[in-house]
Formats: sequence, C-alpha cells, structure tokens
Amino acid sequence: MGKRVFNFYAGPATLPLKALKEAKAEFLDFRGTGMSVCEISHRAKDFQAVLDEATALIKEIYGIPAHFHILWLHGGASTQFFHLPWNLALEGRPMTYIHTGSWAEAAIKEAKFFGEVKVLASSEDAKFSYTPRKFEIDRDAAYLHITSNETIGGIEWIEFPDTGATPLVVDASSDFLSHPIDWTRVALLYAGAQKNLGPAGVTVVIIREDMVARARTKKLPTMVSYATHVDKGSMHNTPPCFAIYLSLLALKDLKEKGGLPYIEKLNKRKAKVLYTLIDNSNGYYKGVARPDSRSRMNITFRLPSEQLEEKCVAEAKAKGFIGLKGHRSVGGMRASLYNAMLLKGVKELATFLSEFQKANA
Amino acid sequence: MGKRVFNFYAGPATLPLKALKEAKAEFLDFRGTGMSVCEISHRAKDFQAVLDEATALIKEIYGIPAHFHILWLHGGASTQFFHLPWNLALEGRPMTYIHTGSWAEAAIKEAKFFGEVKVLASSEDAKFSYTPRKFEIDRDAAYLHITSNETIGGIEWIEFPDTGATPLVVDASSDFLSHPIDWTRVALLYAGAQKNLGPAGVTVVIIREDMVARARTKKLPTMVSYATHVDKGSMHNTPPCFAIYLSLLALKDLKEKGGLPYIEKLNKRKAKVLYTLIDNSNGYYKGVARPDSRSRMNITFRLPSEQLEEKCVAEAKAKGFIGLKGHRSVGGMRASLYNAMLLKGVKELATFLSEFQKANA
Repeated sequence: MGKRVFNFYAGPATLPLKALKEAKAEFLDFRGTGMSVCEISHRAKDFQAVLDEATALIKEIYGIPAHFHILWLHGGASTQFFHLPWNLALEGRPMTYIHTGSWAEAAIKEAKFFGEVKVLASSEDAKFSYTPRKFEIDRDAAYLHITSNETIGGIEWIEFPDTGATPLVVDASSDFLSHPIDWTRVALLYAGAQKNLGPAGVTVVIIREDMVARARTKKLPTMVSYATHVDKGSMHNTPPCFAIYLSLLALKDLKEKGGLPYIEKLNKRKAKVLYTLIDNSNGYYKGVARPDSRSRMNITFRLPSEQLEEKCVAEAKAKGFIGLKGHRSVGGMRASLYNAMLLKGVKELATFLSEFQKANA
Repeated sequence: MGKRVFNFYAGPATLPLKALKEAKAEFLDFRGTGMSVCEISHRAKDFQAVLDEATALIKEIYGIPAHFHILWLHGGASTQFFHLPWNLALEGRPMTYIHTGSWAEAAIKEAKFFGEVKVLASSEDAKFSYTPRKFEIDRDAAYLHITSNETIGGIEWIEFPDTGATPLVVDASSDFLSHPIDWTRVALLYAGAQKNLGPAGVTVVIIREDMVARARTKKLPTMVSYATHVDKGSMHNTPPCFAIYLSLLALKDLKEKGGLPYIEKLNKRKAKVLYTLIDNSNGYYKGVARPDSRSRMNITFRLPSEQLEEKCVAEAKAKGFIGLKGHRSVGGMRASLYNAMLLKGVKELATFLSEFQKANA
C-alpha cells in the first residue's frame, strides 16, 4: 500500500482514517448481512438504522433543537441553490443575499428563477477577501442567505448575523460541523457532504419547522419539496446510501474524539499554524483574506510570483502534500484544513513552507 | 466474514463480486494516490480518468451512436421525472406517456408541472400486468415516455415502439444494460444506477444531440439543464464520485464477461428458470405478469395465500435468499434478477421453491 498523503484538496477532501478503515473492513459484508452496504435495500432495517443513527448524531453533535428536521438529499449544494428559493420564496417579497464570492454568486443566480433577488451587501469591491458586516436586514424579505465559508476566497463567517424575524438561510457546505452554531439565528442550513462530513453525493439540509410549513403552501415537484423529504424521512426515493453510511462512520469518529468542542479547538489550532507562518514570513507568503475574515477551513495565500507558486505546489506534491493549488478562477495557493485534516499534516506543511521560503527567497 | 447471500432485492441490488472486491482492495489507496477514491478531488486527473473510462465503456458496451451524450447526474430516476419534462416540453404540444404502473405514474405526475400531459395507453385495466402494444403515436407530441421495465408489476418492454419523428424517452432504470437496444428509436434514455449498474446516488442520462439542442432553447436552473452537463462533462459541480467509480468497476466486469450478448443470454436463462418453475407448478405459484409482457428483471408471483407467502419469504431468508417480498403496495413475492445475479443463485432459489411447494402444497 502507498503511503497515506496529506490531502489539502478543497473537496472532495480528506476523511477520518478510522472511518475509511471501518468501511473497508465490512465492505463485502455489511453488519453481517452477507452483502455490501452498496447492495442492501434502503428499505432493509439494517440500512434504516444507518440513516437513523447518522441523523441522531448530527442532532446530538451540533446541538440542534427539536423543532428542526435533518434531511439527507441527493445532489450537492448546487442542487439546493434552486430547490431552496423554490421552497422558500414568498409572493411580492424579495429574497436577500450577501455576496461573498463564487458560491454566493451561484446561489444568487439560481434564486432569480423564483422571484426578486436583492443583494444586501457584497465584498466584490475587495475581490471577496472579507465577509461584509455592515448591512441592513430587509424585514420584508422571504429570507436572507449567507455562505458561511467561501472556499475560493478563503473567508468565513464564524458568527452568524442576527436577522431577527427574517429567516436566515446558510450554505455551510465548507464549514459544516466545524464549530458550534447559534441555532436561534438559523432557519435553514445546508451542506454538501464532501468537505467536512463524508464523500460527495449527499447534502444535509437542516430545516426549521416553520420553513417546512412554508414549503407545504407551495405546489412543487415531489423531489423539490422539503415537505416530501420530511414526511418520508429522506426515503421518498432510494437515497445515496453509501454516502450516508460513510458519513455516519465519520460522525461516530467525530463524536468519539470529543464532538464540536474538540473539533473547534483543533480547527483553530490548525488554522493558526498556517496564518502564523504567513504573518511571520516577512511578506514572502501573502494571505489573500482580510485578517478579520480569515477562514479556518481554507487558507489562501500567494507567493512572490506565479512561477514560485507552481514550483511550491510541485515540490509539496512530491513530499506528499496534495491539492495545494488555488482554485483555477483565482490562482495562488490554498490549503484546505477540514475536520479530518490532522494537526500533524498542517505542522509538516508549515515546516515544508518555511524551508521552501529559505531555499527560494 | 459472513456467507455471501443471494440478494434478490429490487434495488439497491446485488453487484458483481469482482467489482466489490476491487473497490475494497484499493479503498484506502485509490490507484496508488495515497488516498481513498472518496477523498480525491473530482478535478484530479485520476478521477477524471474514472469518469472518462466509465463513459466510454457505456458507449462501447451499449453500442451507442456518436450523436448521443452520456451524462452522470446526481439523484435517482425520481429527479429525472421533473428534469426531463422541464428540458423537453414544447409550448402548445402535449407530453405523452404510456402508463404501465407505479414508476410511469410517478413520471406522469411530475411532467404535469411543465405542461399538458396525455396518457396514450394504460394497463391499469389489468392491474398493470402487461405493457400496452396498441396505441396511436401523437405526431404532435413533445415526446413519448415509456418505462421499459416496471419493477413492481414485473413487466418489461424488450422492443421499444417505433415512434417515428416523435422523440422516445425511456426510463430504463431497472433494465439498463440488460439487453441490446435499437438506438435509432431512442431520443433520451435514463437509468438510476442502483439496479443494473452500481450503487444508489447516480443516474445515467443518454441524450441525443437534438434533445440537447432543445434544452438549449430553454431558460432553466443550471443543474436542471442537460446542456449544462453536456458542456461541463458531468462536472458542473462535484459529481457523486464513489457511485461513478463503483459503476466503472461493474462495467469493466460486464465487458470482460462478454458485454451485452453475454448478459442478454444470461438474463434470458435466469428468467426462464423461474418462469418455467412457475408455469410447471400446477398453479401453486401464479405469475403476476401476463406471459407476453414478463420482465426478465423482476419475476413477480403469488402463492395460494398470504400466509404461505410470508412463510416462504421467511424460510427463503433463513437459507440465504434475501429480498423476496413483493413491493409493499401490491404484496406477493418478487425475485429481482438483475445483471449481477448469478445463474447459480436463481437455480438454487428454484430448487428451494420446488421443495417449498412439496412441503406446503
């Protein structure tokens, strides 16, 4: 077997080794059923137990109040970009968005199919290097949508805005389960699994009861309506079983390690290792995000030249640090430090970057 | 490890053991990359190679002409039930459907969101026990939709109707890649993976160039438009990577074994074993489907009483024949004999059923 690399990809991304080993061990014989988890009927009690346990663990680890439902849906956040406005739009009332980069932009684009969209604030003036803090909540809006972490710019919204009676909708795809959330501020939160939870192909939607009630007032295609998935327990059709199963194993691993208090502390420490390196590099490494908006999940930075960036990515790869190239739309470098990235990996990367600077300054 | 059972579930369903073993063997180290296939970026060349090879294998094995595109999409057939009419509806022209049971009904229901739907023929008069053969094609229709195999009734449409200039759309979820198809009759064919191809969570859409052109005339949400997925090579967003990967391994296995000629012959033999048993049981086992419409994939039958059916399902399960209970909406028994079901499994099931009859007649 090849040496396990440190995988800094922005998603799909590194997963807990323990969860992967468990999945491998029982891949041909899921819980003694004599078949793979990829083969068992989703209606079989052994699979229902997987879905139920994964749902319960998300509620428990995230501290989600009882008036929220947890849905496991097909597709990625890109699917929710059009499902959510279709469910939550209200006649004659705008849908409001904060524009923080590529992912917010994609969400805004799809919402326009379903009514008027107002962008309340944008950080486009500074190439999406910060999360806007000053804007006025539109009290008339159907909802306010934010992207809690932008993987491309490397900016994050740790504390959510207090939107009062206006429902707050959060795309938390890239910082899901990475720190505690004040659920009193949230109406709906969704996240594609492939960064902080499990493999690609499933999206978790955490939806407050009143938003389900709003969806019930709409005539929607069956698969679009959140009410369908609440009523059918995410089993209206065959769910993406394997993605849910592997997410469960990752959730169990997270709980065993200490849940949110543990992972928040670890994520802060990991991010600090790299930001400290950047800040102490005498400008050799330049952070892309404004310090007050720095993401703990995606550390974006530049080197003195594109040539040096290319060289750095290539040398890092040769040493087993994979996926450090920035998003193709912005260039530069990016280290994604999702929940499953080990502190050891980040420290070793920092050592490599220090040495690279010495050799190439 | 537990003994491998014979899995007759209607889907998710049995998969080729060789493919499962390969996936298990490299689960922690995909192609020597030092990471799981569940962790690698979908933009990495090693994953692109998976998608490309799986696409090429479907084209090759199915003999698909060059003017069709192969798309790998999130979700199940239920997702396509609303995506396809949204892409293919034409102003002032009806969408036509043949109603053959629960799956056709679900497809019809969603199409009604996007325009007028006409049901040209239905087998509801005989509890969906046959595929209607006599109906007039509506030359004005945007398309005609059929469900090539109904898993609940156990009926199948081996030869597709000649619809002339009216585009034929086929939900082939439950008999995908199980026999050769006359592609000159098909405009779009789609199939959820979890019966004949791979694990749940991905749907293959095979779409003719003129249907893509039609989709381009529409203003659609990005994820709904077939044009998006053609233009982005099924990579507009992160695809369900693991489901595509395991489908590739199953496709390789199918090709090695002899492709469509091999699998069609095998599927005919497997179905014949059970239908012969049913026909020779002096009425103890009663086939549900009309003989001229019998599915090779889902063999549906009844016993003299529901009590005997329950007993039969339970005794079969104890002997390692899993998933023989009929769909909850119709009751009875059902043996699903998808591509990966071994002839050995079907023969052993037939022996068991013969013995059960002797002991319980």
